[in-house]
Amino acid sequence: MPDLFRPNIARLRGYVPGEQPREKGYIKLNTNENPYPPSPLVLARLRDACSANLRLYPDPDAWALRRKLGEVFAIAPQQIMAGNGSDELLNVIIRSFASEGDKIAYPHPTYGYYKPLIDIQGAEAVPVEFGEDFALPEGLAVPGARITFLANPNAPSGTLVPYAEVAALCARIEGVLVVDEAYVDFSQGGCIQLIAEHPNAIVVRTMSKSFSLAGMRIGFAFAPVALIEGMWKVKDHYNLNRLSLVAAEAALEDIDAMRGNAARVCATRSRLCARLRGLGFYVWDSQANFVLAKLGERWANCAAAELYAQLKERRILVRYFAAPPRLADCLRISVGTDAEIAALLAALKELSSV
Amino acid sequence: MPDLFRPNIARLRGYVPGEQPREKGYIKLNTNENPYPPSPLVLARLRDACSANLRLYPDPDAWALRRKLGEVFAIAPQQIMAGNGSDELLNVIIRSFASEGDKIAYPHPTYGYYKPLIDIQGAEAVPVEFGEDFALPEGLAVPGARITFLANPNAPSGTLVPYAEVAALCARIEGVLVVDEAYVDFSQGGCIQLIAEHPNAIVVRTMSKSFSLAGMRIGFAFAPVALIEGMWKVKDHYNLNRLSLVAAEAALEDIDAMRGNAARVCATRSRLCARLRGLGFYVWDSQANFVLAKLGERWANCAAAELYAQLKERRILVRYFAAPPRLADCLRISVGTDAEIAALLAALKELSSV
Repeated sequence: MPDLFRPNIARLRGYVPGEQPREKGYIKLNTNENPYPPSPLVLARLRDACSANLRLYPDPDAWALRRKLGEVFAIAPQQIMAGNGSDELLNVIIRSFASEGDKIAYPHPTYGYYKPLIDIQGAEAVPVEFGEDFALPEGLAVPGARITFLANPNAPSGTLVPYAEVAALCARIEGVLVVDEAYVDFSQGGCIQLIAEHPNAIVVRTMSKSFSLAGMRIGFAFAPVALIEGMWKVKDHYNLNRLSLVAAEAALEDIDAMRGNAARVCATRSRLCARLRGLGFYVWDSQANFVLAKLGERWANCAAAELYAQLKERRILVRYFAAPPRLADCLRISVGTDAEIAALLAALKELSSV
Repeated sequence: MPDLFRPNIARLRGYVPGEQPREKGYIKLNTNENPYPPSPLVLARLRDACSANLRLYPDPDAWALRRKLGEVFAIAPQQIMAGNGSDELLNVIIRSFASEGDKIAYPHPTYGYYKPLIDIQGAEAVPVEFGEDFALPEGLAVPGARITFLANPNAPSGTLVPYAEVAALCARIEGVLVVDEAYVDFSQGGCIQLIAEHPNAIVVRTMSKSFSLAGMRIGFAFAPVALIEGMWKVKDHYNLNRLSLVAAEAALEDIDAMRGNAARVCATRSRLCARLRGLGFYVWDSQANFVLAKLGERWANCAAAELYAQLKERRILVRYFAAPPRLADCLRISVGTDAEIAALLAALKELSSV
């Protein structure tokens, strides 16, 4: 029997998401979840929605949700698509705009899921290296690229490219620009206004981080109407279930809860950055709910992989990336509660003096 | 600016799912939802799960659910993938096994979503016409087809191909056979044992119909381990949210609730078929939770489209397919509660004597 899989799929190594430990008792600072619970209104509305109506299909148009989003962001519902997490929307975008062999560009290192999605499509990934400061790389406008991804703030660096530079990039490239704003609520940035001025701009957001709803898989794409209409042909019709729709609507109604949690995370992040620097790490200025910390000279006797393992032994999970090489001496640390971060810092202090 | 979309997407007409009326008060017999509510255990567990834990990502491996499925179906969890509805799994299957230009075969008419999914991938759809009796078409083993879809029971006919014929087809074709068993719990069939004997067999199921959970988007694929492993590289990692996982696990724990509802639907279906035949319709023998009814001579003065519209005026929604032409004189009617079906039959009786 000949190989049943497509050649590009047979070749592919699967993407490994951050660990979700099955045992309890870990301080989980590895997958950028929000340490604070979602709005009580979300939980109350969800409980009410656990009814016999679950026998019925959800609204494939997500109309009520898109109307609310339109009000919050002052755009038309027709400029909005909701997805089963922003990952589904990235997937829909690739399948809408890039055929097999087409080029898709992105700065590197960045969110690790663009590459597998590109490989699955059989498109050509064109990574463009960031400099040490994670400023927008000159060469990111790759000739012929059908899609350019820009995580902004970037993961895992937490750095933010200013609006004017994003807009200039959008005007310069040939295909669509996808600004992935998963972490934007922890920043001073935001590029939604791009879509009013650029026919090729798409902005993607998620409720997984700032809205404390990683467990519900809710993402949004904002784009000019012509782009949303075409992408609509590609998305699974009933892509959001009834409860995700209810959660998303309620979360928008109590958006102040999200803002309060985001502000607390940002305050903790400032303290974390300062303390990590004091402990001999280089820490990039983060506008996200995590920081990227590079082991400095004081850690000469300890590899990042080892530090990750020693923290894990102490039941503290952070994210270590074996690849790419330039991240091999770094740890990415999600901003937890003050108590969680105090425990992390105490452990690091102890380990630094071994 | 050149066209941003892929040519196949630009050409595509979007799929139109069955109407989900926003107004209340309709008797909804158009999208094959279950007229009975899901198990009370499902609703109770869901309410308990509406907690602060929704801030955390779901288990990307769906381990607890796959273990339960393995017990219920007497197969290994490694032979199972869970999806955001079976639609997501059909999507994953196409992206795993068929590249642009590859052939994908299916009998026709059948579930209307295979064609758009194939078109989105840029693969080549090869429909093979069913005969009037909806028996398995001789020519379905299309040379070179990478995938063959078989909805069994078929939609919209409700007809079932016997296991032995499905197994013979599976042995004969070159690529994978996908047996889409969305409606199997209303039938005397079931092909899961195929996967033990055929390296190219995939069986897909859903909780949308028999389990009364269309609103939760839960589907399953059963296949040999090597196929599941490859498909795993293609699926979005966090594809099922926390509440869908909870609902699916609870629904399996109370599988008798599903069986009871399915039995009630089947009993109503028998009465519906008999009464429709009495009213001058040709009705195919259905093993699903709907029937396909063709307007006979007694309806010579009334087109199916018109009958659909007149029922809608009476707040009864059934499904009318303008295309393909051979369905143009048919209506597909979901099996509702006894009261709903009584209302439908009363309306049809009235309309037949106009």
